[in-house]
Amino acid sequence: MTTIKDVAKLADVSTATVSRVLNSNGYVNPTTKERVKQAIEQLNYLPNDVARSLFKGRSKMIALFVPDIMNPYFPELARAVEDVTNHHEYTFVLCNTDDDIEKELTYLNALQQKSVDGFIIVSSTISEEHINKINAPIVALDRILSSKLSSVTVNNREGARQAVQYLKSTGAKRIAHICGPDHAGNTKTRLQGYLDEVKNDKWFLSSYIVPGEYNFEIAKQSTIKLLTDHPEIDAIFAGNDLMGAGALSAAANLGINVPADLSIIGFDGIAIGETTTPALTTMAQPIYEIGSKAAEMLIQQITDNQSIIKSEEFKVVLKERQSTRARR
Amino acid sequence: MTTIKDVAKLADVSTATVSRVLNSNGYVNPTTKERVKQAIEQLNYLPNDVARSLFKGRSKMIALFVPDIMNPYFPELARAVEDVTNHHEYTFVLCNTDDDIEKELTYLNALQQKSVDGFIIVSSTISEEHINKINAPIVALDRILSSKLSSVTVNNREGARQAVQYLKSTGAKRIAHICGPDHAGNTKTRLQGYLDEVKNDKWFLSSYIVPGEYNFEIAKQSTIKLLTDHPEIDAIFAGNDLMGAGALSAAANLGINVPADLSIIGFDGIAIGETTTPALTTMAQPIYEIGSKAAEMLIQQITDNQSIIKSEEFKVVLKERQSTRARR
Repeated sequence: MTTIKDVAKLADVSTATVSRVLNSNGYVNPTTKERVKQAIEQLNYLPNDVARSLFKGRSKMIALFVPDIMNPYFPELARAVEDVTNHHEYTFVLCNTDDDIEKELTYLNALQQKSVDGFIIVSSTISEEHINKINAPIVALDRILSSKLSSVTVNNREGARQAVQYLKSTGAKRIAHICGPDHAGNTKTRLQGYLDEVKNDKWFLSSYIVPGEYNFEIAKQSTIKLLTDHPEIDAIFAGNDLMGAGALSAAANLGINVPADLSIIGFDGIAIGETTTPALTTMAQPIYEIGSKAAEMLIQQITDNQSIIKSEEFKVVLKERQSTRARR
Repeated sequence: MTTIKDVAKLADVSTATVSRVLNSNGYVNPTTKERVKQAIEQLNYLPNDVARSLFKGRSKMIALFVPDIMNPYFPELARAVEDVTNHHEYTFVLCNTDDDIEKELTYLNALQQKSVDGFIIVSSTISEEHINKINAPIVALDRILSSKLSSVTVNNREGARQAVQYLKSTGAKRIAHICGPDHAGNTKTRLQGYLDEVKNDKWFLSSYIVPGEYNFEIAKQSTIKLLTDHPEIDAIFAGNDLMGAGALSAAANLGINVPADLSIIGFDGIAIGETTTPALTTMAQPIYEIGSKAAEMLIQQITDNQSIIKSEEFKVVLKERQSTRARR
């Protein structure tokens, strides 16, 4: 069994120097460092786990659970989480859960067995009961899972309200809403924001609310039907950008001019909104900040081994592009 | 220490029945199964690792390395890999590498320490030398990393050639190419396919090849410059769909009518091509089949513990949408 002394002897340095190299702690002359590393390699020295992880960097691991990897919002969020975790020398893995509680529990179990250090979870199905069984720090993202967990969210309801207010400020008189899937937490809050603004308007009809399932194609079909049944509609608030892109495609299909005859606003602020023609106006989440914040909070919990519960709420911001008329 | 006999006794069944439940192997009456599970829980019985992993399912793990999680091609690929790995009761994690060899090696080391069972790798930087150090099965995806590894690829060069042939069949006379980043393997093969078809044409100019970095915005800016410098161009072959969307946006910006005055074809067949206006014609990869195949091959290697090298090449298929003129 090779020991730290053997390494020190071969490299002709003290064991303290070897330790400094292993722990990347304190100054070591680069040439000396190289000699120590070579000795370690030559002797195939395996330091203990902690030292090894410090030496190799990043054997520590964090997992992010997202409900739908195909919705570009989540890769954008993942990118931010990854940058922060890498910066802190954590390895970062991404798990797609389909908002399916069976899959979520399987991931939680499997990754706990692999000694994952912590979780960032976007979920509409995980409950307090499930969380109590998990023996690692968790930060809830996008939706609050339990009062016992730190969370990072956005002002969905207020943001939705602002989207509708904005459409009104551009002169819209009949505003429809394409909403997300029933099981997603923010479907409800965004719908509430829409209703806050329109429910007392004389023109409002419940048939102005159509399902889009956070899906391009479903939103497109719903919008075609909506605009065919209700040609009086002059603006649409889509519950996310993917559905906003679907609504744009529906309008193109029906030969309706956007924004001259129909304004469309989305929610999220994902890159896809810039790739449509016309580009999609949206209530943009600060996606990068949200992901970074969640990662920072989790790493702090892991490092401090404390459980101070923090809740951060970010604000969405209007991004005016070309799919809405100018304000009056 | 609780044993399997204690569980059998409490549940009032044979140890063989408990074993069948643990191993999900052979028929057990659902009521009996429930009773066994309750007994296991009540006694807090911990079967050995193998049995436990079979019981809980999926403590086994597979990792997919992709160079750019923000390019929707990779989430679509990940979706396919995940479906197959879940079907075989493996947990699936996704790692974003930025085609950065440092990150790739860090992931390989960290995940090996966590006992990941195998890797599916999309990389333009990992070499034979790195692979030799990895003590787990690897399947190379999209690009062949070593003759010692199984691989799943597509006919990039032939597909690119077909894209250009198709543009010619619609009457295009001056065809430009937006290419990917230098470091990506398929940038070169797709460019070669383009050159195969145009290099002997009298009209061909090397300035018809512009960089797009597999990025929407960069492709858009390159296309604006290209079409301003060369108004004679009547068709563009974009090396991937993201850049195709960028080219569409550039045309809209310049007031050029697609497809009447300019045909644009992409490559990959990702969903974003259906969200643009007009929808993007493309050489579609069978993304789902590619991902599934790679996952099947990897799981077979893990299960059989053999190293039979297989190479699968899939063919891309023309998907005609609205961004190209009709064939003559």
